[in-house]
Amino acid sequence: MVFLKILPMNGGNGKSSYANNSLLQKKMILEVRPFLEVSIKDAFSSGIPSCVKLADLGCSSGPNALSAISEIIHTIHGMSKRMNCKSPEFQVFLNDLPGNDFNNIFSLLPDFNEKLTKEEDDTLGHCFITGVPGSFYSRIFPSRSLDFVHSSCSVHWLSQAPAGLEKNKGHIYIANGSPPTVIQAYTNQFQRDFSLFLGLRSEEIKLAGRMVITIIGRSMEDPSGGECCDLWELLAESLTDMLAEGLIEEADLNSFNIPIYYPSEGEVRAVVQEEGSFNLDKIESFEANWDPFDDSDKYREAQNVANYVRSITEPTLKSHFGGAVIGNLFGRYADHLAKHLLMEKGKYFFMVISLTKK
Amino acid sequence: MVFLKILPMNGGNGKSSYANNSLLQKKMILEVRPFLEVSIKDAFSSGIPSCVKLADLGCSSGPNALSAISEIIHTIHGMSKRMNCKSPEFQVFLNDLPGNDFNNIFSLLPDFNEKLTKEEDDTLGHCFITGVPGSFYSRIFPSRSLDFVHSSCSVHWLSQAPAGLEKNKGHIYIANGSPPTVIQAYTNQFQRDFSLFLGLRSEEIKLAGRMVITIIGRSMEDPSGGECCDLWELLAESLTDMLAEGLIEEADLNSFNIPIYYPSEGEVRAVVQEEGSFNLDKIESFEANWDPFDDSDKYREAQNVANYVRSITEPTLKSHFGGAVIGNLFGRYADHLAKHLLMEKGKYFFMVISLTKK
Repeated sequence: MVFLKILPMNGGNGKSSYANNSLLQKKMILEVRPFLEVSIKDAFSSGIPSCVKLADLGCSSGPNALSAISEIIHTIHGMSKRMNCKSPEFQVFLNDLPGNDFNNIFSLLPDFNEKLTKEEDDTLGHCFITGVPGSFYSRIFPSRSLDFVHSSCSVHWLSQAPAGLEKNKGHIYIANGSPPTVIQAYTNQFQRDFSLFLGLRSEEIKLAGRMVITIIGRSMEDPSGGECCDLWELLAESLTDMLAEGLIEEADLNSFNIPIYYPSEGEVRAVVQEEGSFNLDKIESFEANWDPFDDSDKYREAQNVANYVRSITEPTLKSHFGGAVIGNLFGRYADHLAKHLLMEKGKYFFMVISLTKK
Repeated sequence: MVFLKILPMNGGNGKSSYANNSLLQKKMILEVRPFLEVSIKDAFSSGIPSCVKLADLGCSSGPNALSAISEIIHTIHGMSKRMNCKSPEFQVFLNDLPGNDFNNIFSLLPDFNEKLTKEEDDTLGHCFITGVPGSFYSRIFPSRSLDFVHSSCSVHWLSQAPAGLEKNKGHIYIANGSPPTVIQAYTNQFQRDFSLFLGLRSEEIKLAGRMVITIIGRSMEDPSGGECCDLWELLAESLTDMLAEGLIEEADLNSFNIPIYYPSEGEVRAVVQEEGSFNLDKIESFEANWDPFDDSDKYREAQNVANYVRSITEPTLKSHFGGAVIGNLFGRYADHLAKHLLMEKGKYFFMVISLTKK
């Protein structure tokens, strides 16, 4: 069994970069803002430490990497003012895989600091931003060192594509009518990975520390009917077309499965309860269009979705199929998407959860 | 007065990259190893915290960025074993300017972790490596958060080229026979900057925490007779040749001064004493050839020195004179260096100091 190497988003500032195709994540962060604010206020209601240690897991690159953090800092600073306390210092840990474009994030820091100074007043304590390269499926922080952890659009990425997907030929995710072994392989991998994630964080987060996670999930219990199944099935169809034309190898297509899982609310609740380190304070869900620009033209809509999927998968696809196929693949993908979107709307189902360390 | 923008070393892995021209710094780290070991043992003789917080200031990119850190971890881990204590966790903060090539360092981490696992035994605690972008002439860490700070070949870089160097025409550093105003401008800038550096670190380092700094200095009291004056004067001569040929502008040459100062031992001691936050435990000095390869052929020696100076100054020179002149400039510089090295040996004078937070 060849395991897919988990790779980061597209770096840099180019047309296909994650930095320039991350409107969806930006909208998520805006949508989640009120939920996040309530969680922060609740987390620090009994006191604010002199140095608040914040982490953002799977921060990626581009402006989103810092937007949730500035929200969190703003809320805590506001609380300290209302409590007539001195503003705390903030130590911020931005985490993503070692291959993530940290240089890009760091180049944004002078502007970020300037904006922070402008938006807050001069009572704001020092903010120290650091980059933490590493998989969140391993220990990445010292024991009991974090006060607040945030993660947006990351934890639905698995630690690896599941083993046991030999019967998933011609598909790259759970498809409509996938055999039970395929569905089981994905659900098992999610349960193991999310449980591992919670266990690791429970060692790193202080007692009563808080974690707010936004993930893409599905609204129905049946995994093969999830909102995003078609998104990947259309990419699988594009790859199948290329196989028919001899542009990619059959073995490569058969061994490729996207290392993502979109859980239901029930699955999330079950893993949190079984793992046992955290109380699930609250869970909310909402929808968003596949195309974050909500374009009225179906062809432009399809192109926007293709650009987005390219920005989050290109390094992974390149390492599996080679770089030469990428342009061709995403051209076909946009066509398949357009046909699909003419018939039905493409929607994401999101969940945001707040967890407190027991 | 136009202040020179302080820029980082050459990034990437190319021929002129710092990563591939950092043998000098590697030799320094090896030379300082016994001194560092004694300082670490002394610092943690009365106990090792459960998580040791280490910082390396001006870490740059390439393999050197991690070599001092692995020495420090190795020494502390050895101490914990001899004390029959559980190994601490290590949180390592690698600092350099925001434009530093942190992606390069982070790409080395999988190999670094593998090497660490091989060299230490499985009792070693977790090591968490983070990148901290920012100038060490500003606050970069939370108050009283660090146990041990290391810095190699960085603190002789000033926060900016000094003001008041209008009379330094045709030179780019203190030259033989520089007027007293030029010498004064440089010495004042060093005193201000080094004092600022100590004051900032004294807020960040825990009580009785330790700092080991290696800097390039000079062995004599007269600043215009320092070991490195010729190194910069030969680069100034190369620039003057290009001015004569109309390849660079006179105003650009006159406004360019290298933002470095090589202090004497007396100057270092005086600033530490006057600033007052640290006890100077120990100071040692040693010499090294300008050419870290110690090449017997003077032309190759000159080329090695030119490559090294290029790797540490190219971004700064490019931003001042434009990128087109760089190749030409360093070709001429190698010629000037060769002529000089045929007549006399080029030496660096180094100091390593250990400081304890009062």
